[in-house]
Amino acid sequence: MGYLDNISSPEDVKKLNNEQLSCLAEEIRTFLINKVSKTGGHLAPNLGVVELTLAIHKNFNTEYDKIVWDVGHQSYVHKILTGRKDKFDTLRKLGGLAGFPKTCESRHDCFNTGHSSTSISAALGIARARDLKKENYSVAAVIGDGAMTGGMAYEALNDGGRLNSNFIVILNDNEMSISHNVGGMSKYLSRLRTDPVYTKAKEDVDNFLDRMPNFSKKARAAAVKIKGTVKYLFAQGVFFEQLGYKYYGPVDGHNFEELNKALIAAKKIKGPVLVHVSTQKGKGYSFAEESPDRFHGIAPFEIETGETFGLNEPDYSKIFGDAACDFAKENDRIVAISAAMAKGTGLYRFSTEFSQRFFDVGIAEQHAVTLAAGMSISGMIPIVAIYSSFLQRAYDQIVHDVAIQKLHVVFAIDRSGIVGEDGETHQGIFDISFLNHIPNLTIMAPADYYELRQMLDFAVNKQNGPVAIRYPRGRGKAILAKEYPLKKGKGAVIREGRDVCILAVGSMVSTAAAAAEILEGKGVSAEVVSARFVKPVDEQLIIECANRFKCIVTMEDNCKTGGFGSRVLDVLNENGLKTDLYIMALPDEFITHGSRNELLKQSGLDSASAADAILKKMNNIHI
Amino acid sequence: MGYLDNISSPEDVKKLNNEQLSCLAEEIRTFLINKVSKTGGHLAPNLGVVELTLAIHKNFNTEYDKIVWDVGHQSYVHKILTGRKDKFDTLRKLGGLAGFPKTCESRHDCFNTGHSSTSISAALGIARARDLKKENYSVAAVIGDGAMTGGMAYEALNDGGRLNSNFIVILNDNEMSISHNVGGMSKYLSRLRTDPVYTKAKEDVDNFLDRMPNFSKKARAAAVKIKGTVKYLFAQGVFFEQLGYKYYGPVDGHNFEELNKALIAAKKIKGPVLVHVSTQKGKGYSFAEESPDRFHGIAPFEIETGETFGLNEPDYSKIFGDAACDFAKENDRIVAISAAMAKGTGLYRFSTEFSQRFFDVGIAEQHAVTLAAGMSISGMIPIVAIYSSFLQRAYDQIVHDVAIQKLHVVFAIDRSGIVGEDGETHQGIFDISFLNHIPNLTIMAPADYYELRQMLDFAVNKQNGPVAIRYPRGRGKAILAKEYPLKKGKGAVIREGRDVCILAVGSMVSTAAAAAEILEGKGVSAEVVSARFVKPVDEQLIIECANRFKCIVTMEDNCKTGGFGSRVLDVLNENGLKTDLYIMALPDEFITHGSRNELLKQSGLDSASAADAILKKMNNIHI
Repeated sequence: MGYLDNISSPEDVKKLNNEQLSCLAEEIRTFLINKVSKTGGHLAPNLGVVELTLAIHKNFNTEYDKIVWDVGHQSYVHKILTGRKDKFDTLRKLGGLAGFPKTCESRHDCFNTGHSSTSISAALGIARARDLKKENYSVAAVIGDGAMTGGMAYEALNDGGRLNSNFIVILNDNEMSISHNVGGMSKYLSRLRTDPVYTKAKEDVDNFLDRMPNFSKKARAAAVKIKGTVKYLFAQGVFFEQLGYKYYGPVDGHNFEELNKALIAAKKIKGPVLVHVSTQKGKGYSFAEESPDRFHGIAPFEIETGETFGLNEPDYSKIFGDAACDFAKENDRIVAISAAMAKGTGLYRFSTEFSQRFFDVGIAEQHAVTLAAGMSISGMIPIVAIYSSFLQRAYDQIVHDVAIQKLHVVFAIDRSGIVGEDGETHQGIFDISFLNHIPNLTIMAPADYYELRQMLDFAVNKQNGPVAIRYPRGRGKAILAKEYPLKKGKGAVIREGRDVCILAVGSMVSTAAAAAEILEGKGVSAEVVSARFVKPVDEQLIIECANRFKCIVTMEDNCKTGGFGSRVLDVLNENGLKTDLYIMALPDEFITHGSRNELLKQSGLDSASAADAILKKMNNIHI
Repeated sequence: MGYLDNISSPEDVKKLNNEQLSCLAEEIRTFLINKVSKTGGHLAPNLGVVELTLAIHKNFNTEYDKIVWDVGHQSYVHKILTGRKDKFDTLRKLGGLAGFPKTCESRHDCFNTGHSSTSISAALGIARARDLKKENYSVAAVIGDGAMTGGMAYEALNDGGRLNSNFIVILNDNEMSISHNVGGMSKYLSRLRTDPVYTKAKEDVDNFLDRMPNFSKKARAAAVKIKGTVKYLFAQGVFFEQLGYKYYGPVDGHNFEELNKALIAAKKIKGPVLVHVSTQKGKGYSFAEESPDRFHGIAPFEIETGETFGLNEPDYSKIFGDAACDFAKENDRIVAISAAMAKGTGLYRFSTEFSQRFFDVGIAEQHAVTLAAGMSISGMIPIVAIYSSFLQRAYDQIVHDVAIQKLHVVFAIDRSGIVGEDGETHQGIFDISFLNHIPNLTIMAPADYYELRQMLDFAVNKQNGPVAIRYPRGRGKAILAKEYPLKKGKGAVIREGRDVCILAVGSMVSTAAAAAEILEGKGVSAEVVSARFVKPVDEQLIIECANRFKCIVTMEDNCKTGGFGSRVLDVLNENGLKTDLYIMALPDEFITHGSRNELLKQSGLDSASAADAILKKMNNIHI
């Protein structure tokens, strides 16, 4: 680690020549593979941007120049170079280094990211503030071609095209989002990279015209006119040029000479410029090169084999995907839609077995939902599988295009509740609150993954309106010994008790059941109910509980405001019931990164804390 | 009305030749101007699409072909032609004809719209369902160039570019959204319409090459190669061609011959096609041609003068805009951002007086919010003015880009609560519910527009984090006789009473005050409190009220679930207070079109209904 050991700040990068930078790049790759194999994290995206990041630090000064990393999972190299190298053992751990840029971590991070396609908007805001304050520094957004499928990137590109000052969009084109890219833009970028018609066109025309010396005056005038036109239209990147950007590329993203040349040129331009950089996701680690999507975000793995540790047991995503396939086999109206997450959501099998009925729309959650609405109104039954925190981006479409028209669209909301290591931007802790008030919507949460299958069956085959099913990351515990028939708006008593009743949502049911065991040991007999339906809530059951118990507890891994407990309280109030209600939910704050269990414990939503809190509450009531 | 009288279905349109269609077009314009002058509505957009709509009905059969009208405010002509002509006196009135397409109104409406930029997604969904079901009909989205600035239109365009079956995007390009358009795309479309380099380029090159007969073999080969390239690149609409669309245009949108030719061609194409139609917004009514933005959506007006009726008194939007200007004069860090709504939000004066600090980003709410985040992190104080129902589209950006980073961004949420005539898609009845659970956010609601100024001052000059101010459409009543100093998280008692306490939000304060007067006449002494802060809620005040009153009532023009009352109930519950709480809010359903007052009354949120309900509630308690 000859060079890397001597890098304590980006200043040290600036001293190196291209050859030295290449050595440093290899050392950084080794460092990344070593560290991420132990902590887990976003490996392949970072292996792809080693040279690009070095070139950025060679040519910009992040003490004052502002670099916004889109999504931000590719900021590890940047973190290594900006004084955070020694903290990589704590990556994504509670209290440790975040997996995304964080302004609170370093002055070299100018804007927090996490979700896709925000960087051009943020960078444009920074550039406009700079201009108003008459300051003078460069502003760049580093955005992947995957993130370019997100509509807000285009909104920002469109707006930024009229800027008259330095504004750089670095398009990190690795031909992937998480999986392979889709859509017209992706094909266009691919043509730019490879098609000689594009890369040579301008050159050809120039040569051709030069080779014709004996023109009449009229012909010569025509030639000059055409040359002007050609110059304009034949320029590569005409798509971006049309939006007002000077296009620069394609640049080999692993070649320092080309990168430096492009970035130096971009810095000088007074106006919007797009630098198209071609990189290879996973570069330098054979397993990641071969399966960049598997190594996009990965759990700890063995370097020699590329295999992740731990049991390969089914999780919620797999159960969901298998169930979707089974139901699709029986009902050819079922289609599935993913926003660039076929593997993550468990839909990969569906995408191969029912390729005609599977639609990956790119990182475009808004479009995914309204596309589903269009398919539903024409008689299909779309299952839209999107992670909870990404579904936030389609809130308006759920309200406006699906719910108003009462369309039969099934939302499979994976990664609900606390997701863990990805931190604030990825926690799925708001979904009940942003969905519960939407009219016509049914919201379910399975207590374990057997119930997920049952609920998907119900949603797809026994409903005729919008249904959302929220379920957590990972496996959870199987807790339902017997099968409870599913009835709309009805909860299920899974443990009987006398002293207190715990109404729990989804993954909290097993926590509640464990807490009930602890309480049993302390002489308190707790009933545990799986709410199953967050909406419509089981009013009859709540009223019965209020009549049977002195105290009701609700448990959910959603924020408290606008959550399930809040709705239960409303039912009690509407019915004039004064039973004590203790709402256990997440507090009114963002939740940092750490393991799911640690974070649940921190919020008092593990079984031991819950049992303690319930006991304390009951003692207070008895006093 | 020779022709129009004889149109009872689109079949009648198909019988007319171009000359007759032109006569019909003029009759429709007269009809529109007459009707909308009495009911109010979206006049200018409809005057612009008369010929386009006729041509669509001439060439498509909306009994089976599917036409999705983006936004849908330009669907009046379509409604006239599809059996709804006689209902135009009831346009936008309670129980009457909706101002937007409604599948429940006619089988000729295939998908409901209202918000911008959804049509391509919905149409693509319909087209894909058609293909899966092996059906055979045309699918078209009719989308304005304004709506093309919305990111989800691009998401859908990108996804649709790979379809292998008929899929038509009709770009209705009037160089306007509601005001003039912005951004690179707008400039590009303008070049397509007007620049001879584009419209003649291909022709020129063909001629030029043809004129050179004496080529060497090598030169000839080069020429052929270039011709191929030229053919590809010189094609107009290269931007759309890059995304996979066959481009057809520009077509004069007021010329039936051109329109028919284009639509016939588009119908035949097995793949995505974009028909670029150039229209004039407001065409045929001089006042609307001169001020298409004023006549975009207009109140009843006098045909001869173009003047709207009614007093030109200030409303919330104007007070907001004037206050923003005043504060901007004193503080040069203040900037304002609008999503194509400079006039509607009251920011027009700001846009002229502080043109360097005003940013209209197009119909791009997501980008607007993250742009603001970027500006804020660099030291500016952005005011983002967006209507409540449109802000739904930026929910994720408020959470992810503003709130997590605790950035000082001020959201001026106009058209909160019930907006009236625009109906379901435009009611601002969810904002408290989709904002209240966002950590770090402050939410205020002024009781009248004097207080709006005070709150904007507070938000801009006395805060250092995200603040939202929600205020209704129109004027409301001035109710605050004295000025109450504003203190974070504190409500204001504006009427003292003994028997019941009404905690009201924003525009409901004056309703509560009027209800209190009615109650006074019935022997009930009601205290009225303006909550002022929805978040943080005034816990101390709520506790005091609970101790002083047997019954507390909350009033808000937001849906009940996740609303203000629900939070008040939570405070009572957290503090073990068993005081009766009566939550008056909007029910769990979408709210149709009608006048604001009618709709409030229908929901029991007018003063008389409120007084009745409170009295009844109190009698129940006393029993």
